Amino acid sequence: MEIQEKTAVKPYKKAADYSYTLGAFPTIELIKSGAAKVLGVYVHSSFTDLKQIKLLCDEKGIPVQTNDKLIARLSDKENVFVVGVFEKYKQKLDSLKSHIVLVNPGNMGNVGTILRTAVGFGIHDIAFVSPAVDVFHPKVVRASMGALFRLRHEYFESFSDYRKNNPNQEVFCFMLNGTKLLPKIDYSKRRLFSLVFGNEATGLDDSFLAEGTSVIIPQSSEVDSLNLTIAAGIAMFLFTN
Amino acid sequence: MEIQEKTAVKPYKKAADYSYTLGAFPTIELIKSGAAKVLGVYVHSSFTDLKQIKLLCDEKGIPVQTNDKLIARLSDKENVFVVGVFEKYKQKLDSLKSHIVLVNPGNMGNVGTILRTAVGFGIHDIAFVSPAVDVFHPKVVRASMGALFRLRHEYFESFSDYRKNNPNQEVFCFMLNGTKLLPKIDYSKRRLFSLVFGNEATGLDDSFLAEGTSVIIPQSSEVDSLNLTIAAGIAMFLFTN
Repeated sequence: MEIQEKTAVKPYKKAADYSYTLGAFPTIELIKSGAAKVLGVYVHSSFTDLKQIKLLCDEKGIPVQTNDKLIARLSDKENVFVVGVFEKYKQKLDSLKSHIVLVNPGNMGNVGTILRTAVGFGIHDIAFVSPAVDVFHPKVVRASMGALFRLRHEYFESFSDYRKNNPNQEVFCFMLNGTKLLPKIDYSKRRLFSLVFGNEATGLDDSFLAEGTSVIIPQSSEVDSLNLTIAAGIAMFLFTN
Repeated sequence: MEIQEKTAVKPYKKAADYSYTLGAFPTIELIKSGAAKVLGVYVHSSFTDLKQIKLLCDEKGIPVQTNDKLIARLSDKENVFVVGVFEKYKQKLDSLKSHIVLVNPGNMGNVGTILRTAVGFGIHDIAFVSPAVDVFHPKVVRASMGALFRLRHEYFESFSDYRKNNPNQEVFCFMLNGTKLLPKIDYSKRRLFSLVFGNEATGLDDSFLAEGTSVIIPQSSEVDSLNLTIAAGIAMFLFTN
């Protein structure tokens, strides 16, 4: 089977209308989830576990091609044997579910890890306030281990734009100058919540003190602050257990 | 002031008796903590905040030298303006404190993040069961943001070696086939605890089911498993709050 002209895949660009998964695990997640139209799957000639991928692709009518050069070009020195090319897509959050809101996140690995953790704790709606990392960048997709395809994501120009469409959630803003200690919060599962986190270096600015309950995770003055992914992981665990 | 011959610093080697911090923040942590003998501090000629470092070093009799070439050689493409060279040291855990035990950790960034999180939650004793990442590797020191110098660490040949010297802690082993759900555990602060985590890829083997309480963090089958640093962060938060 031939992959169409369209998928003469080039290293990732934000402006392109397609992106790709790097690695067998996220590629299988991509195909199984059905979230995106999969244009084709490329495998390296030394890939030993072709059967499963081939079967999956045949089922869905996805072309599979061996192409070592293309994989070398896209994989950026990492050990990659499978690449899945997919069309980018736009989604809307489910306004009747609980959300994670990432305001101006800058680190692709962090965003991918947060997506993976969110799905792990049953949270399937992630808002981004721009400027923010491009979720379709292969590095984000890879860090998410394909969890991107298991959830809904939506970009907003501002936090108030987000709130216009999503007024039902109780808002919790995580800030170093938050007024409430995380362990003192009542994590009732019955309410809808939005957990809001700022940029890795700068956090949330003081305007967020008025957006809902501002929360601080108690921590020793011996360290600068907790890593963003750790803070988000702790909060997601507590609000879903 | 001249830095002695001994510190004609070379790219890091595990066998060397010195290592170094990359960046102003971990270097200041190194000096302030007093954990290691600091052999010298190198700064880049374009570093703008020399005063604070110079003052600190003068106080402690540590030589400071401008050396752009040396910084370029050690910093491995990252943006680094300050390097602190220190003598490696050996420590013993405090057997009357609570501990984190990392069994065969393989990722330097993960170990650094866990050290930083531990200090953030007031845990100052970290055991490593070999084979394990070298905590003195500059990548670990950097990921820890210098938290390495705020805690005690000790390497052990096996988990039972660790237990011989540290029999007082109640042991909690985090495993995907753990028998107790994390939210069901009584996090009493009064007891001493050891929180035990396995390698990123392989986790803890079944022999750990008999070492204490085996614990699982409830998570959706939609993801492979939680990231090690996230799992450790959640556990440390719960046991210290």
